[in-house]
Order: sequence, then C-alpha cells, then structure tokens
Amino acid sequence: MDAISVIRTKRDRGELTPEQIDWVIDAYTRGEVADEQMSALAMAILLNGMNRTEIARWTAAMIASGERMNFDALSRPTTDKHSTGGVGDKITLPLAPLVAACGAAVPQLSGRGLGHTGGTLDKLESIPGWRAHLSNEEMLNVLDTTGAVICAAGDGLAPADKKLYALRDVTGTVEAIPLIASSIMSKKIAEGTGALVLDVKVGSGAFMKTIEDARELASTMVALGTDSGVRTVALLTDMSTPLGLTAGNALEVRESVEVLAGGGPQDVIDLTLALAREMLDAAGLKDADPEKALADGSAMDVWRRMISAQGGDPDATLPVAREQHIVTARSSGVLTRLDAYDVGVAAWRLGAGRARKEDPVQAGAGVELHAKPGDTVTEGQPLMTLHTDTPEKFDYALKALPDAYDIAPAGTSFAPLPVVRERIA
Amino acid sequence: MDAISVIRTKRDRGELTPEQIDWVIDAYTRGEVADEQMSALAMAILLNGMNRTEIARWTAAMIASGERMNFDALSRPTTDKHSTGGVGDKITLPLAPLVAACGAAVPQLSGRGLGHTGGTLDKLESIPGWRAHLSNEEMLNVLDTTGAVICAAGDGLAPADKKLYALRDVTGTVEAIPLIASSIMSKKIAEGTGALVLDVKVGSGAFMKTIEDARELASTMVALGTDSGVRTVALLTDMSTPLGLTAGNALEVRESVEVLAGGGPQDVIDLTLALAREMLDAAGLKDADPEKALADGSAMDVWRRMISAQGGDPDATLPVAREQHIVTARSSGVLTRLDAYDVGVAAWRLGAGRARKEDPVQAGAGVELHAKPGDTVTEGQPLMTLHTDTPEKFDYALKALPDAYDIAPAGTSFAPLPVVRERIA
Repeated sequence: MDAISVIRTKRDRGELTPEQIDWVIDAYTRGEVADEQMSALAMAILLNGMNRTEIARWTAAMIASGERMNFDALSRPTTDKHSTGGVGDKITLPLAPLVAACGAAVPQLSGRGLGHTGGTLDKLESIPGWRAHLSNEEMLNVLDTTGAVICAAGDGLAPADKKLYALRDVTGTVEAIPLIASSIMSKKIAEGTGALVLDVKVGSGAFMKTIEDARELASTMVALGTDSGVRTVALLTDMSTPLGLTAGNALEVRESVEVLAGGGPQDVIDLTLALAREMLDAAGLKDADPEKALADGSAMDVWRRMISAQGGDPDATLPVAREQHIVTARSSGVLTRLDAYDVGVAAWRLGAGRARKEDPVQAGAGVELHAKPGDTVTEGQPLMTLHTDTPEKFDYALKALPDAYDIAPAGTSFAPLPVVRERIA
Repeated sequence: MDAISVIRTKRDRGELTPEQIDWVIDAYTRGEVADEQMSALAMAILLNGMNRTEIARWTAAMIASGERMNFDALSRPTTDKHSTGGVGDKITLPLAPLVAACGAAVPQLSGRGLGHTGGTLDKLESIPGWRAHLSNEEMLNVLDTTGAVICAAGDGLAPADKKLYALRDVTGTVEAIPLIASSIMSKKIAEGTGALVLDVKVGSGAFMKTIEDARELASTMVALGTDSGVRTVALLTDMSTPLGLTAGNALEVRESVEVLAGGGPQDVIDLTLALAREMLDAAGLKDADPEKALADGSAMDVWRRMISAQGGDPDATLPVAREQHIVTARSSGVLTRLDAYDVGVAAWRLGAGRARKEDPVQAGAGVELHAKPGDTVTEGQPLMTLHTDTPEKFDYALKALPDAYDIAPAGTSFAPLPVVRERIA
C-alpha cells in the first residue's frame, strides 16, 4: 500500500477500497503519508467525489484514529446538535441549557470561528472567567451536575480529522461534501452521543449555497449517524440572512441571554425551539415542553449553573466595543434582502473573527442589525451598527456592505423564507 | 494574492490570470506557498486542465525562476533533442555525437530514470570514470571542443520546475499534459538551444498511452517552443515495444556503441537517423549527411572524444551483471507483441531503475531481447535474458512478464508499427 496508488485511484475516478481508506487515514495520522500527498488526495476527492460506502469507511477510519467517549454512566439520555455554521448563529447558547432543563444531557463539543462564520467557543469566551478547555473528567462532571456542557473537543477525539481539517483549510479543499460530512460525523460519533440533530445551513452565509447541496450533505450525514447507531435527524435552515439581530461574540451572548429571559428575536426563538423539540424527540423525551422551560426560567437556571461550572460569571458585565459606526438605509420601503455573507464578512473584518487559527478575536466587535427582511424602513434610519475596538477597520468592513441589502418600494408584498426549510430523517 | 484563491480558481474550472501564475510560481520557489498547497493546485490542474495561454505563462514563470544559458559565443548552431521517456530508449547516446559530427553543437542536458523508464545519465555512468555533473564552464568547454555534451542540468536552471517535479512525483500528479509540457519546455528554453526536436513516445511503455494524448502534448510543446523563438519540431514515435534489443544501463551503452560502429538494431538506427535529420534541419544545416557520418566513423570519433572529455574511458570494459536467467518462448509462431511497459518494469525490478530518487542503480542489470515483434520464434527458444547482480530479484521481475508477449500461429501476416508515427511542426 502506498500513497501514490491511493491518490491515483481517486484521481482516475475509481472507488477507494476499505483497505486503502484505512491505510491512508492511519498512515496520515502517523505522519507516514505527507501533507502534500493528503492535500492532492483531498483535491481529487473534492473534484471526483466519494460514494456512500467510501464516506462511511472514511468516517469510521477517522473515528478509529482516536478515543471514543462514553456517556452510559449518566442517568439521562444524551442528545447533541451540530450546526454547519452561519452568521449570527448563537443557537447553541440558549439551546443546550434549554434541552438540559427538559431532562436530557447535552454534551456540546464546539469549535471556533474561521472565516466569516462565528464560533461558539469564541462567543462564550467573552464571558469573564469562562473556560473552553476541560479535561474529560471535568466535562463529565459539568454535564452530570448541570445537564449541559459546551466546551472544546479534547485532542484525543478523531485526531485524523483535526490534522486533515487544518490541512483542508489552507489548501482550498474545505468545500467537499464527503469531507465535510465525515469530519462532522467522525467527531460526533466518537463523542458518544445517543442522539444528534444536524442544523444544515443553506444560503449565502453558509458553506452550502443551494438547497440541493444542503440536502446532499444532510442526507449523507443522517445515513452515517444512523448506520453508527446514533439517532440522527437534520433540519435544513435558512442562512440567506443573519440569525437574530447580532453577529459578534459578546453581542450574541447578550442576545442569547435575552432569549433565555423570555425575549429576543423571533427567528432565534423559533429555531431554538424547533431544534430543542427534535433533540428531545430523538432522545426519547417525547413529553418534554421546551416552550414552558423557556418561559418559566428553568432554561435560564441551567445556563447560569453551566456558565458558573466552567468558571464564568453569569452576572458579569459583557465587554462592549470602544467605537461604533452607524450604517443608514439609502431609501425608504420594504427591506427584501439583508445578506448573511456580507454581514458575516463585515463582522469578521471588525475583529469578531480571525483570518488565521492563531489570531485573537475582539469580544465586543461585530454587527448589530436594526431591521430584518420584511421590515419597513425609512431613508436615513439606522440599518446596522458596526462595533470595533479598532476604528481603523471601519473602512475595510464597510467595503463588504455596499450590496448587502435591497429595499423595494413601500407596499411591495414580501414574505421572508421560513427559518426551517426542510427536515431529513 | 494568496495560495487558496489561486487553488480555488483552478478547482472551480476558472482560468488562472498571468498575475496569479507569476505569483504562485515565484512564491512556491521562495517557499511562501507550501508543498501541500502546490500539490492541491497540481491535482486541480491535472483534473481541470489549463489552456494554451495559461501553459505559456506557467512555462515563462518557471524559466524566470532561474538563470538562462546562452550559446551565442559558439561557432556552430545549437540543436537539442528531448524524449518523453521510454523503455530501451538509448537514442541520445548515438544521436548527440552523430549530430555533432555533422556540424551542429548539441547541449544535451539529461535526467535520470524513475519508475520503469531509463535515464540517460544512469546509462552513461556505467562507463568507468564518466562524470554527469559539470560546472557551466566545463559544460561549455566540452561542447565547444567536441561538439556535444551530455550532462546533468545545473541547479540554476528553472529551479521552480525542479521543486515542482519532485513534488509531482510523490503526489500522483505527474500525468498532467500542461505540467509535463511546461516542465520539459521551461528547461529546454532556459538552456538556450536554438533548435529543438521532441521525441514524444506513445504506447504502453510511454507516459502517453494514446496517439491523441501524444498529439496534444506534442503540439502544446511545439507551440511553446516556437513562441519562445526556438525552432521546434516533434516526432510521435512508437513505444508499444522496447527500442532495440536492450533495456538496462551498460546493456544500452553497448548497443549504442554498436550503432556508432555501423551495426546495431534497425529500429535504433532508423530513429537515430530520423531525429538527426530533424535536428540538423532545424539548425539550418540542410546539407548535412548523418547516414555518411555514421558509416564513416566520424560520429564514433565524436563519441570517444565526448566520453573522454567527461572523464570516461571509451575503451573500458563495461560492467556485466553477475547472474542471468533466460525466458523461453512458450509456443512457436510469429511474435506479434512484446510489451514495452512489462519489459521496462522487469528491467527496473532487476536493478536497472530506482524506486526512489536516492536509490542506486545496477550498471549491469536489465533485459536483453532475442526477438522483436514480427520475428518468427520457436517454442523453447530464448526470448529474453534477464541480468542482475541480485538473483533473488528474478522472481519479482518474472512476475511482470507472464503477459508480456503474444505469439500468433506461424504464417500469420503481421506488420509492426513504424518507429516514427507522426510529425508535428
């Protein structure tokens, strides 16, 4: 077995054998297959595809590269959620404590933002004192005592995926459905959750720009989960416009706390409840009432305990950016488009995101929206407020925004896309 | 400008801009673009192609990565040949002195064998004392005094190509026509020859398996050369069966000397003369008579001077392998196929070639043929003799040969392919 013959098989549109897949993942993890060989293979996979059999084996090989966790000792059923990433996607923050308040255990291993999409850990780190890195023992302890934990995945989980993900990021091979599906599912299956709900974003602010690609990714992942004994469901949800009214780290924590307090934007509430119902259903908790848990403050209680258990102060004042700049509406009428990608890029450039893994993020930076598609706006009214600690970045951020929105004449009838577009199980 | 955007352009079937090409070649040579990024780009080029404009710019950028040589000070016109590589392809050895004997200067920068194809430098190194590595000054001196020089290309010539060639070799990205064409032509144009004849091999023992691919490669290279002011012609020549009766280092030197002495196999003589006529024509020496120069010993005189000038002893006894094994014909009749690739692999496994760049080769190892397609053979007669210093390799070499030949019933009419199949100018 050698790397070149594996690369040639896929380059020439062949099907990789189970032995080839097992060997190449293991040899890459051990450093015997070099980065330049794996990136050539990744490009061949991106351009020539993998079938379901190959993807399942690829995923299994990545799981086998590391440890598997086990939550059997917990008294509650485990259920988890994964989002493919979007702009303003803070849903994990209210969702994990809400589902825990309804009786499930939520082991939410999360990531950081890269490019224009935000990362859950970056958001929570804007809470003074909060720690993302826990030992496996600490993680189990927080999960057992509070019902939910949101933390960084340990190094032992699917190390092949960690290495391959970093490689894909610098070699233009991120956007391959087989590699995206196996990357997500290897971590979730190795994590050991009993049930999983996938939030597959579709639209300008998502990796999947079309509903067809989103469907393909979702059904691939649902099959991988189901075949591995994880009860898996996917919702295809809209990411043509940002979720809620904020994109940025502390800005999104603030909005999430509003939702837990019974307020917040309707689309964030709707999606949080839709995902909570799916997670609870998949965990076998059919009688749970997430709407009630949100209204009666029990979700907020879990949130406060969860943040405290990881060193955070739920009552601390969140960081605010030093400078603001207001973008006003250029005409009056109905806002028919507010582009998720453009807003995401602006937030990123303001300091909310990072260009390279090692870059720091600004806790207070980001974009606050004052209108959403469907709203009536008046010429000159504030449409967005840009936040940053480094005002020299305003110009660069504004360059992302000239085509970020459309306004139709007043009275134009316009129906925004529903937040949940399809369900795949 | 960044590597990922260049990779994405080609991945998404776009045309690379001149600025992207210049930047990526320069940044790769300087180490700013990493190997894993260049290999992903090479795979995208292999699968999605480059158009003629892109290939021309890519070639120019590789030339610009290093020095350019200049032969203007020579009193004779320069003319060179490049073969895309095959089995038993020793043609450079008799050809360079023959063309020099007819009045041209032949600066033949050559390479080593890799995989199943042999390398000119490996062959000549079987002559005791002969040195492949010359300084630019030594090279010009040998060329000026003898009319021909065969040596390794200096490190200053197209360093981008050196780096990229080594990378392609380990990443399954060798077989891309745009990359093969630009690799060959960047070196030949930087070398500064005035005329160039390309021997594009086609058949099982060549990189180009079909006449269509060979035509595409040849016409791409002819256009690159012509556009750079080099008078360039290509012959598409047969590589379905080995050239001559030997494949191996010292074995091929011996056969080459036979040709220079007025003997040798007809196909080797024919191809040597065909290429010599093209080289002399392209150099403007229309009245030269290579047939006479071969017959009257003047080509042999140049050979002896050229070998001596590089430290070799033209009268030395050539190395002979310690062990032989004879393969006999399994039936009687007409030999209709003797596969170049299979024979090349057998010679390689016997020790004539190398698996990795740093491996040594055996001077005496290889395959000697006792019949060629079109010949009548008798069951049990010797068909090939295998030579090696390491007889434990016989079994492995024999594994390449069970389907290496076909014998049709006696009396079957059979016409072998002509050596020269097409001419492209």
